[in-house]
Amino acid sequence: MNSTSKENESPLVGILMGSPSDAEIMSRASNTLNQLGVPCEVLVRSAHRTPDESIEYARSARERGLKVIIAGAGLAAHLAGVVAAYTPLPVIGVPIGAGPLAGQDALLSTVQMPPGTPVATVAINGAQNAAYLAARILALADAELAARLEQAREERRRKVIEGD
Amino acid sequence: MNSTSKENESPLVGILMGSPSDAEIMSRASNTLNQLGVPCEVLVRSAHRTPDESIEYARSARERGLKVIIAGAGLAAHLAGVVAAYTPLPVIGVPIGAGPLAGQDALLSTVQMPPGTPVATVAINGAQNAAYLAARILALADAELAARLEQAREERRRKVIEGD
Amino acid sequence: MNSTSKENESPLVGILMGSPSDAEIMSRASNTLNQLGVPCEVLVRSAHRTPDESIEYARSARERGLKVIIAGAGLAAHLAGVVAAYTPLPVIGVPIGAGPLAGQDALLSTVQMPPGTPVATVAINGAQNAAYLAARILALADAELAARLEQAREERRRKVIEGD
Amino acid sequence: MNSTSKENESPLVGILMGSPSDAEIMSRASNTLNQLGVPCEVLVRSAHRTPDESIEYARSARERGLKVIIAGAGLAAHLAGVVAAYTPLPVIGVPIGAGPLAGQDALLSTVQMPPGTPVATVAINGAQNAAYLAARILALADAELAARLEQAREERRRKVIEGD
Amino acid sequence: MNSTSKENESPLVGILMGSPSDAEIMSRASNTLNQLGVPCEVLVRSAHRTPDESIEYARSARERGLKVIIAGAGLAAHLAGVVAAYTPLPVIGVPIGAGPLAGQDALLSTVQMPPGTPVATVAINGAQNAAYLAARILALADAELAARLEQAREERRRKVIEGD
Amino acid sequence: MNSTSKENESPLVGILMGSPSDAEIMSRASNTLNQLGVPCEVLVRSAHRTPDESIEYARSARERGLKVIIAGAGLAAHLAGVVAAYTPLPVIGVPIGAGPLAGQDALLSTVQMPPGTPVATVAINGAQNAAYLAARILALADAELAARLEQAREERRRKVIEGD
Amino acid sequence: MNSTSKENESPLVGILMGSPSDAEIMSRASNTLNQLGVPCEVLVRSAHRTPDESIEYARSARERGLKVIIAGAGLAAHLAGVVAAYTPLPVIGVPIGAGPLAGQDALLSTVQMPPGTPVATVAINGAQNAAYLAARILALADAELAARLEQAREERRRKVIEGD
Amino acid sequence: MNSTSKENESPLVGILMGSPSDAEIMSRASNTLNQLGVPCEVLVRSAHRTPDESIEYARSARERGLKVIIAGAGLAAHLAGVVAAYTPLPVIGVPIGAGPLAGQDALLSTVQMPPGTPVATVAINGAQNAAYLAARILALADAELAARLEQAREERRRKVIEGD
Repeated sequence: MNSTSKENESPLVGILMGSPSDAEIMSRASNTLNQLGVPCEVLVRSAHRTPDESIEYARSARERGLKVIIAGAGLAAHLAGVVAAYTPLPVIGVPIGAGPLAGQDALLSTVQMPPGTPVATVAINGAQNAAYLAARILALADAELAARLEQAREERRRKVIEGD
Repeated sequence: MNSTSKENESPLVGILMGSPSDAEIMSRASNTLNQLGVPCEVLVRSAHRTPDESIEYARSARERGLKVIIAGAGLAAHLAGVVAAYTPLPVIGVPIGAGPLAGQDALLSTVQMPPGTPVATVAINGAQNAAYLAARILALADAELAARLEQAREERRRKVIEGD
Repeated sequence: MNSTSKENESPLVGILMGSPSDAEIMSRASNTLNQLGVPCEVLVRSAHRTPDESIEYARSARERGLKVIIAGAGLAAHLAGVVAAYTPLPVIGVPIGAGPLAGQDALLSTVQMPPGTPVATVAINGAQNAAYLAARILALADAELAARLEQAREERRRKVIEGD
Repeated sequence: MNSTSKENESPLVGILMGSPSDAEIMSRASNTLNQLGVPCEVLVRSAHRTPDESIEYARSARERGLKVIIAGAGLAAHLAGVVAAYTPLPVIGVPIGAGPLAGQDALLSTVQMPPGTPVATVAINGAQNAAYLAARILALADAELAARLEQAREERRRKVIEGD
Repeated sequence: MNSTSKENESPLVGILMGSPSDAEIMSRASNTLNQLGVPCEVLVRSAHRTPDESIEYARSARERGLKVIIAGAGLAAHLAGVVAAYTPLPVIGVPIGAGPLAGQDALLSTVQMPPGTPVATVAINGAQNAAYLAARILALADAELAARLEQAREERRRKVIEGD
Repeated sequence: MNSTSKENESPLVGILMGSPSDAEIMSRASNTLNQLGVPCEVLVRSAHRTPDESIEYARSARERGLKVIIAGAGLAAHLAGVVAAYTPLPVIGVPIGAGPLAGQDALLSTVQMPPGTPVATVAINGAQNAAYLAARILALADAELAARLEQAREERRRKVIEGD
Repeated sequence: MNSTSKENESPLVGILMGSPSDAEIMSRASNTLNQLGVPCEVLVRSAHRTPDESIEYARSARERGLKVIIAGAGLAAHLAGVVAAYTPLPVIGVPIGAGPLAGQDALLSTVQMPPGTPVATVAINGAQNAAYLAARILALADAELAARLEQAREERRRKVIEGD
Repeated sequence: MNSTSKENESPLVGILMGSPSDAEIMSRASNTLNQLGVPCEVLVRSAHRTPDESIEYARSARERGLKVIIAGAGLAAHLAGVVAAYTPLPVIGVPIGAGPLAGQDALLSTVQMPPGTPVATVAINGAQNAAYLAARILALADAELAARLEQAREERRRKVIEGD
């Protein structure tokens, strides 16, 4: 489960998930980034089962050229917070709606971060919006991406109007 | 309640709040940005009482040179979502813990955005982290800010160790 | 998905939904209004994907002869609130029970409106009651509709007694 | 606690509350209606302590000239639902934020009405919006009231802009 | 759906449900009472669709020889509270777990009764326990029923031990 | 904290509380029973600190002449359930609204009992209603108490009407 | 449903469940202990249906050689608390996600224990972690078990890395 | 804020808290351990502000002679989970009831741990029970401590009976 959206480009967004069972939800993030032409990589890294690898990933992310990290996890979702503690990059958290509480636990574990270590939290299972948020951030310095985002916005609008 | 953090610099972050009663919480965002040397502006703009002005603010934000918008609101907090629908910039939402539900309504109204219009949500009353998140985004293109953020992180660390 | 309950009559109730996926729930509103002989129209208008069209709809609603607007949306349901900010008509909000939180997010996003911009909120997925509420409002000035409502009430009563 | 907003006019809105302890919250409804020039009456009627009087009030409301009933109650708030079962008028429910659950019980008891008997629910403690909603309904047949509502909206807007 | 557990005996327990869709859950109450030899009757009576019939049932219950009333309802479950307001008998409320909130609304609408009008609330969908509670009450004056209850308790115990 | 409402009468209702800190709330139960002329006794018995004494109390309750047991506890409120497992008498549970969750934990711990061991649960802090419920049960076999209950109901009604 | 993980060894961990329907979840605890080579026994013991047997089990646990007790129960889950009141051993509670509230009731009933009687609570349905926690406790005095735990940790890590 | 309960004894229990503001709550843990004669140490270690120090503490805990770690944190409380990922010792989590959600966020962030990394969670603000749980674990290998725990249990019992 390690993919790079465009083989010749080094990834700008790193997508982590706490468990292989999160892959279906989190693939919406990589799919959306692929559609927007944003190179990304996808890895399974667990805050509790592979803490060293998660930390190492976070620590080296900036120097490896990443600009944004997206981290999805369920239950007591610590992954995004742990990553945010080890990288200066913006970190986007996706609470996964797994388990009996349907993601309420993951939402609170992800969003209620204490001062100093922010996690940009999106909706429960909101991996697609995590990608759009990453793209908005990258578009600050990439006019072409900004144009593609604008196009995607226009398409969403058109679909609603036409589907009317 | 309209302040610019540094008079000679045009603001990079726009801080909106839905009501003057949110000012105490939201001033933590402007204070933090001021400390980090990030120029910002603070305005009251309501999604329901001044919808046109909120939309106009969002629409013109990018061309006015803003890079990030922070929007804080309580109750059925629509402000961040409405702003995000009208700007391509990254929008950070601060759910304000006002009213009998202590911000649970504002949290869900802010974070549970549908696909295509992301709001980077921080903790209830987490205006300070909204500023840190904005700074992380801006630091992608500003090495000096990145250094100041690193310094702030080190200071937080030192305080905990020394306060030990 | 644009229907007018009676072709020769201009609609009195506008039914908006934030997404085509809300159509199954929201059709209960149009069906009930049709049964009560209240002309209505049904459109998809999203607070975030077609904000301009939503606002334009709200702004022109009264002069187009509408008396009540029903707006159904899920997740961070901003549609009813945005519409209520742009029309002087009574706006009825239907929180849609979509997504992992089963409509708790939509309920709070719809009902917890700040002072000045009320949304008359009905139950989660309560599109049928939105129609009955619209009909109660219209019946204030329409004795025949009042009679049909009374009849419907009597039928509900009879069904319970007979079904006993 | 029985007031009529204008002595020479018969009330158009009946404001009920389940307990005298709700008076502080519910007075926001009568104050707002008074400001808008809408004659109203205020009574304490309990679904459980004075059920007959509550029902009698609901039953006779329309023929006594009332157009809208506002009912505020806390805890297991049954008042609005019971009233709605006995009147064809639109009924607005105000969940009162009393007791240890801060109105979450009253919100659900008021808004989750079954099909056929709608209660137009506003925010917890949202008595002011109950009045605005009643005024929106009455303004459908009262151009002067519509103008006063428009004026109030403009004033809210101006306050935000000036207070800025 | 009107059954009397023993044809020659007049019912001691009246079982009401707000809707025919509650019948599957509520039949556990009548089945349990039948097993315990307690005569009961089962009726559909809605607080909102047949309020007069519900009230009439409650009002006449004691003189008709009933000792306990069990009322099951979902959503904004007002039935038990309305019945308790009109009878001096002990009223047992069964919150039905219908709708998107899985009975959390019905639980709060049933249990959070204000002082003076108690509803003896059992678990969500706990119709069987409503029957056992009614039987405990009746057994205060019926030694044979007490013995049967004791027997049922012993059987539950034995099943656990043997099933071990 | 061991009181008997009438010295010459043996108690019919036993009121237990899990902790002396529950005394303020639970005294509403004894006060109400005293007003209704129902002899009761009040004891502190903890499911966890004095389990043997709690069980012994429950086991001997019926033969000591008690008819109803009221048990109030906060947090993980096990007292009512433990007592109900050891007595055939009807047990009324009062969830105490202590601690950070304001009684939501106590409510669920008290009401969500499994089949076979019912606890008649009243509102959070609803000790007064626990007393009224006990009185309704006792009034099945005590016409004078029934009359006093009727009188109390009439007084509640009169207060609302007069206080109007 | 009474198994001992290794026939020749006396059990160190006792696994109780409140109902046979909890067996599927709770078997994860015994399976995990079996894999770790920790002898355990599994019994159904209900706090409400077999209170004496539950207490007797708890009371004799230490002298029978048990070191840790794991207790799983759903709804108003009193089992772990009752056991903890009767044994000096560490007690681990597993809230079972049964019923309409998906284990939120069991979680609060298990974890919110008052001072003096702790229950080491794991996640809803977290029987596997209950076993790991028991093993961590036992490993304090068992170097071989500590090594097996370390091995299991390494395997979890390897699986994530390889499954990557 | 670094104390060792008995200067001449090396600590058996390490008490961590995520912030100095947790000290008041967490001192109940150290006070209780002191009363029980269990040597402990208290440190501030944040999962997000001092992640390296937290990890280093966890990693070296066993070889430094610690047997149990207690970790208290509020909001998105990751501390206990992070520590549990780096130590084979039993880790007890204390959710701190800070912030607008009163500890519901901390409870879920602490207890809902994924399989393999258990955190023994006690009640919100339940630092005293964390100490008792640690003592129960240590008493498995310390008969004198077991006796002191038994004594404390007897005292709690006596206080309830005498306070009666």
